[in-house]
Amino acid sequence: MEQKSGRSVEVCFTPNQFDQYYTGQKVVVVIDVLRATSAICTAFAHGVARIIPVATVEEAEDYLKKGYMVGAERNGEVVDGFTFGNSPYSYMGDKVKGQTIVLTTTNGTQAIHISRKAENVVIGSLINLKAICDWLLEKNEDVLILCSGWKDKFNLEDTICAGAIAEVLIGDGGFHYHEDTTVAARYLFKSAEQSYFGFLRASSHRKRLKKLNLNKDIIYSLTPNQVDNVPILKDGAIVDWKSL
Amino acid sequence: MEQKSGRSVEVCFTPNQFDQYYTGQKVVVVIDVLRATSAICTAFAHGVARIIPVATVEEAEDYLKKGYMVGAERNGEVVDGFTFGNSPYSYMGDKVKGQTIVLTTTNGTQAIHISRKAENVVIGSLINLKAICDWLLEKNEDVLILCSGWKDKFNLEDTICAGAIAEVLIGDGGFHYHEDTTVAARYLFKSAEQSYFGFLRASSHRKRLKKLNLNKDIIYSLTPNQVDNVPILKDGAIVDWKSL
Repeated sequence: MEQKSGRSVEVCFTPNQFDQYYTGQKVVVVIDVLRATSAICTAFAHGVARIIPVATVEEAEDYLKKGYMVGAERNGEVVDGFTFGNSPYSYMGDKVKGQTIVLTTTNGTQAIHISRKAENVVIGSLINLKAICDWLLEKNEDVLILCSGWKDKFNLEDTICAGAIAEVLIGDGGFHYHEDTTVAARYLFKSAEQSYFGFLRASSHRKRLKKLNLNKDIIYSLTPNQVDNVPILKDGAIVDWKSL
Repeated sequence: MEQKSGRSVEVCFTPNQFDQYYTGQKVVVVIDVLRATSAICTAFAHGVARIIPVATVEEAEDYLKKGYMVGAERNGEVVDGFTFGNSPYSYMGDKVKGQTIVLTTTNGTQAIHISRKAENVVIGSLINLKAICDWLLEKNEDVLILCSGWKDKFNLEDTICAGAIAEVLIGDGGFHYHEDTTVAARYLFKSAEQSYFGFLRASSHRKRLKKLNLNKDIIYSLTPNQVDNVPILKDGAIVDWKSL
């Protein structure tokens, strides 16, 4: 079903290039497949009330002292003094239901921070792929997909997820595009879609996480369409779109 | 013939990311397929003595006043007041033989400028693909391939050329790599190699040049292995490696 929407979709590879690609799009989709945005989508599937993304470990510590449940990750590991990092498995089950959770991560929460100037900031991952695409098609506004990357470097897994979303918006929604980043993300998605796990064998971040014994997280985060929520930033906190 | 060289090859997508990817590699290969590095390789195939890359139009004007042959391009077009831009066809034939040419372009000469801290800066394009790969294999040092991009944005044609070079160094030379940019460039090259021209149909720069009636330049610049020289930066000027 092709409906020429007149809307555009573009992909930005890293947070430090945001200003080069942001042209006032009404929607920014933040992607951090390994693992922040996968963890956020997981949390809402398990009934979390809201997630407050913070940029620094210091802010996270302040919330911890106040008694909040706080996740803090740097360089793939849980920050000293915190119980949770950004493993999706930390945000499952009864302990998170109804909670407000504070989260700071190496890349993902920084990307959310940078995106705040957009009217709508939503959270994308492979695990909520269909849900986010359906939402974007329904919303029918110009979209910028911001990959969190790794410390402002390009990464494969976020780009592939961005390509998967762009492919649906262009193919099903008739969105147009003109940036080479968008063309490349679609090609990389097509090269990867038979086996995300195999495709990412050579990726730097997968090797980094494998070293940290996080293969279980990787397999989970690379399995599309496990949850059907669309987390969205409202007044500084992320909530489930359905709760609005 | 795989010889494990112990050397590395990495790809950097844009000049403004150079410092994130430059780790002291002995060789930087600067790529600007459309069209600066294709024009430079063409010039040496036609007997140019040396090319002085300058970063600004003002410097180019100074050389013009002194009587040099000067090429100046901005935004795909010849700068007002100059006869030549960066079309490879401007750097052919008897008029260039033995000349010193001064060149400033939107992206390529900026990338050369940024690369100067490396011990060796060489000029790569699709038209000298085999020559540059042979030289890099023979040199057997760590390599960073710097794509000129378009105004510090990622572009497809430079990335594909970078991927083609990386593919040879990894496959034939046993070079190793760990950046996701290098993985992506190889995948994009493999997606493109059956038809560079078809692959780039959607690329932003091809559309930009097509508007300027530069299809002839594009077809020329996307045709591999037309010349066998390796231009190299020595004391601020580019010369043919063979002349050293």
